[in-house]
Amino acid sequence: MKTLVVIAHPNSHESGLQSFLKESCSSLETVKIYDIQEDLKTFNLVEVQKLLKKQDRIIFQFPMYWYAAPDILYKWLEKVLTKSLYKDSLKGKELGIVINMGQKLSSFQAGASEHFTISELLRPFQAIAYKCQMTYLPPFSIPLFSYLNEKDKKKLLINYQHYVTKENDSRFLIRENWAIERLIELEKKRVIKDEENRLTSIRDALEDNRLELDSLLMSLEEMRDE
Amino acid sequence: MKTLVVIAHPNSHESGLQSFLKESCSSLETVKIYDIQEDLKTFNLVEVQKLLKKQDRIIFQFPMYWYAAPDILYKWLEKVLTKSLYKDSLKGKELGIVINMGQKLSSFQAGASEHFTISELLRPFQAIAYKCQMTYLPPFSIPLFSYLNEKDKKKLLINYQHYVTKENDSRFLIRENWAIERLIELEKKRVIKDEENRLTSIRDALEDNRLELDSLLMSLEEMRDE
Repeated sequence: MKTLVVIAHPNSHESGLQSFLKESCSSLETVKIYDIQEDLKTFNLVEVQKLLKKQDRIIFQFPMYWYAAPDILYKWLEKVLTKSLYKDSLKGKELGIVINMGQKLSSFQAGASEHFTISELLRPFQAIAYKCQMTYLPPFSIPLFSYLNEKDKKKLLINYQHYVTKENDSRFLIRENWAIERLIELEKKRVIKDEENRLTSIRDALEDNRLELDSLLMSLEEMRDE
Repeated sequence: MKTLVVIAHPNSHESGLQSFLKESCSSLETVKIYDIQEDLKTFNLVEVQKLLKKQDRIIFQFPMYWYAAPDILYKWLEKVLTKSLYKDSLKGKELGIVINMGQKLSSFQAGASEHFTISELLRPFQAIAYKCQMTYLPPFSIPLFSYLNEKDKKKLLINYQHYVTKENDSRFLIRENWAIERLIELEKKRVIKDEENRLTSIRDALEDNRLELDSLLMSLEEMRDE
């Protein structure tokens, strides 16, 4: 599955979070980074549209400014989403949103300081997904990045990699496949040295458990439906 | 009541609707037009903030582009809404939105082609109003302007003038006051010639009816509450 991460940030090089996320993607072969601010300097509509058409998943990644995206995302959308593109060419692809903010997530709800949920504030992007006949993915929110400790950052990294690459399906099968593929990739690249064949054992165990897990999930779903 | 209409349009001079709305405001003494695209050329933060602080009502007026505003509005908000401004200086003022779109209004609902209501899509602006401790007014939507006939345009003009100048209260008293004030203004300016004292009669009739209307409204509200 091919993913394009479209960064909409007035200066992503100076953003600690954007650098962290870019770095997180560098080991992912199927993920390409596209920085709007950089690309607008030498913008070529045909090239950009060609790039978008190649993807399975497109992600808009930006900091929340005044409950919306930075202005360059809107500027870019006005240029890029021509009729031919939104009518046919993006159909069936997925649209994800990676958004970071300086408030905690619990502030975004009725009765709290920000009044609305992230899902509500991002309705315009959900509407874009519908217009382009894309599947809208649940947004990935990163609150208060600068306050995260090292452990939280590692957790964020895994969840983020999951978000940009994982198939949009919550079945155990899919989640295992994702884990197995990542293990194989890391082995290949020797990021992890599998000296004692531990990774192989993990993979085998995951594969052995698959049928059991899927049948367990089915039983749970049947119970819920009753 | 002083109103500032903030136009966010990439080229308002070439927009038939924006010209029509500007013209509609020209007879309204308490309404000032501020065009972002024009002002950004010689932008002066102190001047703009001073202007905003003077108002009772601020209106963002823009065409809907991709379920949001044109990028210049976001660019402008980033410059203008400094902490000192949004923390204190806008408190108690009103925020209105005048938005136009190329689809009919009934397309903006669950199950229809645009999926979400205008109110939902404008949540980010509602959130800005809350953050600035402003009163958020129901948005004023103008669908399919280019298809309006002369009669519809006149109706739009009256409703629009109402929106930018009328006190935010639905009681008959307020609506009458608005109508009376407009009549006096038009008389003064000799836009309407009151040769047969017709306007005076209308004003008198409205004033006579006021008590009756307000008591009728109260009865209706009591019935509804029961």
